[in-house]
Amino acid sequence: MRQSARPVITLTTDFGWQDSYAGELKIVLARLAPEARIIDITHSIPPQDVAAASFVLERLISHFQGAGVHLAVVDPGVGSARRALLARVKEQVVVCPDNGLITWAARWYPDHFSTYEILWRPDEMSATFHGRDLFAPVAAMVANGEFSEEKHCRPIADPVLLPMDFAKAGAGRGEVIYVDHYGNAVTNVRREAIGEPPKRVVIKNRDIGPIRETYAAVIDGEPLALIGSSGLLEIAIRNGSAAHALKIAVGDVVGLA
Amino acid sequence: MRQSARPVITLTTDFGWQDSYAGELKIVLARLAPEARIIDITHSIPPQDVAAASFVLERLISHFQGAGVHLAVVDPGVGSARRALLARVKEQVVVCPDNGLITWAARWYPDHFSTYEILWRPDEMSATFHGRDLFAPVAAMVANGEFSEEKHCRPIADPVLLPMDFAKAGAGRGEVIYVDHYGNAVTNVRREAIGEPPKRVVIKNRDIGPIRETYAAVIDGEPLALIGSSGLLEIAIRNGSAAHALKIAVGDVVGLA
Amino acid sequence: MRQSARPVITLTTDFGWQDSYAGELKIVLARLAPEARIIDITHSIPPQDVAAASFVLERLISHFQGAGVHLAVVDPGVGSARRALLARVKEQVVVCPDNGLITWAARWYPDHFSTYEILWRPDEMSATFHGRDLFAPVAAMVANGEFSEEKHCRPIADPVLLPMDFAKAGAGRGEVIYVDHYGNAVTNVRREAIGEPPKRVVIKNRDIGPIRETYAAVIDGEPLALIGSSGLLEIAIRNGSAAHALKIAVGDVVGLA
Repeated sequence: MRQSARPVITLTTDFGWQDSYAGELKIVLARLAPEARIIDITHSIPPQDVAAASFVLERLISHFQGAGVHLAVVDPGVGSARRALLARVKEQVVVCPDNGLITWAARWYPDHFSTYEILWRPDEMSATFHGRDLFAPVAAMVANGEFSEEKHCRPIADPVLLPMDFAKAGAGRGEVIYVDHYGNAVTNVRREAIGEPPKRVVIKNRDIGPIRETYAAVIDGEPLALIGSSGLLEIAIRNGSAAHALKIAVGDVVGLA
Repeated sequence: MRQSARPVITLTTDFGWQDSYAGELKIVLARLAPEARIIDITHSIPPQDVAAASFVLERLISHFQGAGVHLAVVDPGVGSARRALLARVKEQVVVCPDNGLITWAARWYPDHFSTYEILWRPDEMSATFHGRDLFAPVAAMVANGEFSEEKHCRPIADPVLLPMDFAKAGAGRGEVIYVDHYGNAVTNVRREAIGEPPKRVVIKNRDIGPIRETYAAVIDGEPLALIGSSGLLEIAIRNGSAAHALKIAVGDVVGLA
Repeated sequence: MRQSARPVITLTTDFGWQDSYAGELKIVLARLAPEARIIDITHSIPPQDVAAASFVLERLISHFQGAGVHLAVVDPGVGSARRALLARVKEQVVVCPDNGLITWAARWYPDHFSTYEILWRPDEMSATFHGRDLFAPVAAMVANGEFSEEKHCRPIADPVLLPMDFAKAGAGRGEVIYVDHYGNAVTNVRREAIGEPPKRVVIKNRDIGPIRETYAAVIDGEPLALIGSSGLLEIAIRNGSAAHALKIAVGDVVGLA
């Protein structure tokens, strides 16, 4: 199959879908990077939830092939001294505030990961909307091939990372790191970390049996554990919401025995 | 006016707008069908609600002109033995799980409708996300003109259809098949099936009068019946929600007398 | 940087993201204006909320540079005698029902503002969905350079405007005109209208101090006043919802003393 020649810019924000903010970002990108394909990933990151955005951003990076630019803006520290970040992950570039958004990308790709502080600034910049005024123009310049790490950045070795990581191999436990809109609870337990297949997975003091291949392995309304499309252990309910029915939230512990 | 030469791929899913799933679909399409215009129709089909998706998909097919590809993924049976479906409707192609999603398209266009089981499989496929791994690549290949029903499919005459159909002409009754976000309740009663204009339309034991031409025919907050933009009888409240005020849900009976 | 040669059509509606309506609009535009870049701004204007849509539309117009077409459809009067409107604002064209949607654009750009009644009609038009049947084709024709104010319109000097305007300079008070999804409350007080910086801003009988530069000027959970990215006085709570915590709604009075 053919590969695209058009640069791709993806958008991951907490701007919501109801105000003009996501639109303002997109009209800046359409003007400054007219050749780019702009892809809304989500604007529904819960307000200020850097951890959730970091998870979504990593999913995107993992499934993206080739070169591309990811613009990620969840920016509770806008107007403070927080730095502006450019990260290279595999062949991709992430443009975002330096507040932990690239945590999960750093965990998955520690050997294909480098970070820069963005020193370039636009002529005019509001105090409250750097997504539109700083990060979007940088993303456009990257997509256009007009941005230079040497000229517009300085390398940094200490990007902000959240205190989140994979469960240790063989630890027999992990924790919920993301709950999706179906109510599936994704954990930090990687397929490779599981070792001997556990006889049972336990969450909220409930034994939900061994790891299954598909949702269809249990009947409607029954909980199950499986390796999700992310390659991570997930807790789900077939045709239902595990988060709701089992009252699972981010941070809950899952046991494998 | 001009016709587009770019292929169009539309997206109708229950993936929601908050996770990475819709984005993962779109980056696959952007990579594999770089010339295509990708149009988000909705990702807000209620989780696993095949009937609602079938209605939305048919609306889209009815208003689409010329050739196009519709990728529809509401897939509660992913990982089970359910088949992968390609349907031709008019000049359009629908790519989706074979679980009833094409029901309303089949009802509207029985004479311009043919179905195939997709036998092609990608080199790698997760057990839980065929939207990304199977259906999106097929949609891209169709858009690129690289997919062959002869080579990659087999014709089938028994696609899964839900037990839903139009009200019989002159039956004097029908039922609600879809409730939209305004709270308008769409029924399965076609304009052509009504015959003699009824003196009154009755829903939830309430007489809401004859069929009107427009919302503006009643005062604010009053219920009314009209033929909606779908060509189907709808129950609405002017500048209000009929579903909420009259507690209407899918399956409720509407009478015409 | 380069300027786009592709025409841009932006979409601002109350159609929601769950039904087929926004999709129907987009497939009409893709067919009739195949060269255009179509940008979803929002489909989440609260149903029938012309004032909110007017605010969002103005934000968009203010940040848009160069030529572009804005299609705005919040149309509670569809099917009544309300006129169809084409407004020129700066180099941009707005296509919408004549029901007040262009109010805030008119307030911001009174000297770069002209209005026309659209007289052109399509061959077929539903009674309830002029967005799809009338406004989208007009927007496509404008984007294509195929629409003529002389031929398809008549100039009008009395577009419908809502009874909303900026606070008078030095008035020492204003009111909330928009609440965004973060819970920030935007007022009608322009930066230029404030004059001497006030010692305190008062809302809901609560003194929230002077006008700050950024959210980071207060601690988490504290309310503050600042000039938002709109150039208007805003009431916010750092990493929280001012609308929720202070029970602020559109129409509430803000005092500057």
